[in-house]
Amino acid sequence: MCWCGSTEVYQDVMNHEAFQTLEAFETALKNNLALIPPSMIYAYASLKMGIPFANGSPNLNVDIPALVELSIKNSTPIGGKDFKTGQTLMKTIIAPGLKARMLGLEGWFSSNILGNRDGEVLDDPDSFRSKEVTKGSVLESILQDDLYPDLYGNYYHKIRIEYYPPRGDAKEGWDNIDIQGWLGQKMQLKINFLCRDSILAAPVVLDLVLFLDLAQRAGMRGVQEWLSFYFKSPQCRPDLKPVNSLFDQDDKLRNTLRIIMGEKVIDHSGLDYYENKG
Amino acid sequence: MCWCGSTEVYQDVMNHEAFQTLEAFETALKNNLALIPPSMIYAYASLKMGIPFANGSPNLNVDIPALVELSIKNSTPIGGKDFKTGQTLMKTIIAPGLKARMLGLEGWFSSNILGNRDGEVLDDPDSFRSKEVTKGSVLESILQDDLYPDLYGNYYHKIRIEYYPPRGDAKEGWDNIDIQGWLGQKMQLKINFLCRDSILAAPVVLDLVLFLDLAQRAGMRGVQEWLSFYFKSPQCRPDLKPVNSLFDQDDKLRNTLRIIMGEKVIDHSGLDYYENKG
Amino acid sequence: MCWCGSTEVYQDVMNHEAFQTLEAFETALKNNLALIPPSMIYAYASLKMGIPFANGSPNLNVDIPALVELSIKNSTPIGGKDFKTGQTLMKTIIAPGLKARMLGLEGWFSSNILGNRDGEVLDDPDSFRSKEVTKGSVLESILQDDLYPDLYGNYYHKIRIEYYPPRGDAKEGWDNIDIQGWLGQKMQLKINFLCRDSILAAPVVLDLVLFLDLAQRAGMRGVQEWLSFYFKSPQCRPDLKPVNSLFDQDDKLRNTLRIIMGEKVIDHSGLDYYENKG
Amino acid sequence: MCWCGSTEVYQDVMNHEAFQTLEAFETALKNNLALIPPSMIYAYASLKMGIPFANGSPNLNVDIPALVELSIKNSTPIGGKDFKTGQTLMKTIIAPGLKARMLGLEGWFSSNILGNRDGEVLDDPDSFRSKEVTKGSVLESILQDDLYPDLYGNYYHKIRIEYYPPRGDAKEGWDNIDIQGWLGQKMQLKINFLCRDSILAAPVVLDLVLFLDLAQRAGMRGVQEWLSFYFKSPQCRPDLKPVNSLFDQDDKLRNTLRIIMGEKVIDHSGLDYYENKG
Repeated sequence: MCWCGSTEVYQDVMNHEAFQTLEAFETALKNNLALIPPSMIYAYASLKMGIPFANGSPNLNVDIPALVELSIKNSTPIGGKDFKTGQTLMKTIIAPGLKARMLGLEGWFSSNILGNRDGEVLDDPDSFRSKEVTKGSVLESILQDDLYPDLYGNYYHKIRIEYYPPRGDAKEGWDNIDIQGWLGQKMQLKINFLCRDSILAAPVVLDLVLFLDLAQRAGMRGVQEWLSFYFKSPQCRPDLKPVNSLFDQDDKLRNTLRIIMGEKVIDHSGLDYYENKG
Repeated sequence: MCWCGSTEVYQDVMNHEAFQTLEAFETALKNNLALIPPSMIYAYASLKMGIPFANGSPNLNVDIPALVELSIKNSTPIGGKDFKTGQTLMKTIIAPGLKARMLGLEGWFSSNILGNRDGEVLDDPDSFRSKEVTKGSVLESILQDDLYPDLYGNYYHKIRIEYYPPRGDAKEGWDNIDIQGWLGQKMQLKINFLCRDSILAAPVVLDLVLFLDLAQRAGMRGVQEWLSFYFKSPQCRPDLKPVNSLFDQDDKLRNTLRIIMGEKVIDHSGLDYYENKG
Repeated sequence: MCWCGSTEVYQDVMNHEAFQTLEAFETALKNNLALIPPSMIYAYASLKMGIPFANGSPNLNVDIPALVELSIKNSTPIGGKDFKTGQTLMKTIIAPGLKARMLGLEGWFSSNILGNRDGEVLDDPDSFRSKEVTKGSVLESILQDDLYPDLYGNYYHKIRIEYYPPRGDAKEGWDNIDIQGWLGQKMQLKINFLCRDSILAAPVVLDLVLFLDLAQRAGMRGVQEWLSFYFKSPQCRPDLKPVNSLFDQDDKLRNTLRIIMGEKVIDHSGLDYYENKG
Repeated sequence: MCWCGSTEVYQDVMNHEAFQTLEAFETALKNNLALIPPSMIYAYASLKMGIPFANGSPNLNVDIPALVELSIKNSTPIGGKDFKTGQTLMKTIIAPGLKARMLGLEGWFSSNILGNRDGEVLDDPDSFRSKEVTKGSVLESILQDDLYPDLYGNYYHKIRIEYYPPRGDAKEGWDNIDIQGWLGQKMQLKINFLCRDSILAAPVVLDLVLFLDLAQRAGMRGVQEWLSFYFKSPQCRPDLKPVNSLFDQDDKLRNTLRIIMGEKVIDHSGLDYYENKG
């Protein structure tokens, strides 16, 4: 099952006791706890029946301890959250490139215009807050500001989503990126992405359905972190940071598949290149 | 030694016999063969003295069999060609991202405006031809059109460099990328990069000087393909294709350094993630 | 005197009785009516002393019947409101061009990023509301949707101002304009303006000071509608619509000056062209 | 008749004797002078039959003394040359705005990408030369560098047209405009116009057909300079400069029509505004 519904209102419930264990969650369900959003009920039903579940929206959904517990108990792989399709896809392509070249970041301003119901829903500040959370954290794990405070310790990241009916089912992102090179010299990068949300999301849905089915057949369960490639805010173990770079995610996806197939992983190490030479 | 001179006139001399062996090249040098460009004479002097050499321009320079032979004979590491700094840097960041998501490519139009002597030199069609060659081939090894002919078998790639004095020492790239998603739906990506050539090139020079010195101390010689990260058109073995994706180049650079240090390479394989869990 | 302070909180007080007559206003001043904003007190002082006054901010300021009455009584020319410098300047340049060619308008989305205190103030929704009002109405008088409902009867106009500290004292506008040509074919125009607010505003201040002094010497008083050229939301007679097209404003400015000088106005009529021919 | 064919090869024949008088031209026609391009023969046939003629291409066409002579002799109105539809339309909208505000110009770089046969023809340097001439001169009459040498005496104007098949029947312009404000502070304006040539040109054809017919019925003949509104490089009397500002052209078009109708011209003079007040 793959959740593709609109964004739900943001709720900071991660620490609420009803979501910490499966037992507490099932009790809360029976008591009709109002805090439980609709998408979470669908997710529960899916996992209860042993059907793998992917969360394409920024809602918490399966991203609570109770449902991770159920997914492990029922040997049901899960993945989430929020399909990575437009502006955030580009962000996790470009940020690793700037980082690789150690170009400092002063600011990243992202504006989006959307015309359909998705945009209308996100015009509501409470719904936008859910999106802001999944979209806002992608730079941190890529830039490693703890290792490079001079370059990435103080950038300003602002994201806007604007309902704009003339755009219809299409979507448009505009990014302005302020970077710094040697001697503190300032440079700017502007990205204008004229795209279509459903066209970018549909293959993500298909890939996830196929890979979650494969995972279940291969005996994998719980959070499928190797499918982070498809998500804005990859669900991961509480003691780890998510990987956001599209290229690290791509390496992980492909090398995990190679391991499942019993093939050697690819690491691009270069010395064999010279050994072959002899 | 690191060559940072302006672009020389394009010459299709790869098959000329004077460039095939060190012996023939030295004879041609003595006979003042007019075909030998100035930068090649500097490169020869450098290698003859056992000094590692990096080629920051699109000139052939050390990219001929005769000088590769000399670099191996004298245990002198070499690298080239053409520093990857502005528009091509962005191209090898974005193209791997589009490829990872299997977005088809219909066309890529790249225009550059430059204001200083570099731009003036490239306004000459013969000099531009050198640049067009190093800039033009970067997409092929990334997109693998032989494996994905439907997606990448028929794209139109056009590059323009325009002398525009008001831009001064700064440089500006404008890219229009026409892509296709599911159902043949068309999307567009526009990149406007307001950058500064020397600011982006200077750290490349420093890195190359340090790494080529390291390579020589580590007993490495000939083409240092693991330094492809820094070049638009990486010099490589005649029987191999160059790697152009900035991220594959980055993996190769870092993992090669790890091997030299005796450390384990990083491959982002994911199963250990779940094993740790237990 | 020229008011260049930051934007005050929006107040819909146009119909409040204290602002309708000079007498009521002076009574309210004495009673310290809290609704009277600081800028209005400066304006009153200026007009009371017979000093011409220009309002460079979106505050109401002199745009109330009481102060118009005082400006006429004291023979003191006034003008406002909100200097036209960046994105709105471009909007009143481009919209008349689209209108001249009868290109239909589906939507106009304008985003601004500002880094200094002006941006910080406008990040406050109540202050932004003042700006939204002066910026939002400029298209109406240009496009004449009453005459051309098919072309301009249903466009979507959205304006955003975003505080973005990395931009510093500079300012950046991004406009997306969705237009329609024959057969309903859609086209898009994108404008990215990298500008500097104070550099664009300073000559406006100087021109206004000189022209208001000229007006006073020429015996003109009250609202100087011929200076609309400098304002986002030109103050005008209650029974008239403001002129917003930069080119109509420019014609009016120049022809008014010609009339004051006793010169013939310029109307670009063309038949004399052919008469001269003979 | 309205010429909408592709651009012909540039020929600098304005001073060739065969084009100076109708008699010389008719002799040259009979002798099959190779210099006479196809479009000129169509134009001659049209004028000979008393049919008004508009030239939508950058070819000389009716822009030679011989055919102007014929148009006057046969009382046949003519107009040209080169429909103003995309990038040049925008240029003659924006340049008058910059000029009105006395913003200095350092450079204007214009790049175009076109996908259909029009683009293919203009990829030929000889054909492009025709276009470069009509597109290149539009700024001069607008900016009046003779009056304002400090602001407009030394700008760099470069225009490129690139054949890019993926664009198909659509067309895209990218303009970078480097301007200067007070204290020599530099600012930039970027325009990206995603448009459709035929959709913008078709109403121009219809307007011209109707207005040339009106002109002929109204007894007007020769060059109809009041229709400059529709042309990139308006044909005009040899002793006059063409008007390129879209807004001056629009005023001229409308006021000429008002004069033909016997109506008062509009001059936006402002003093009546104050007189009404009293």
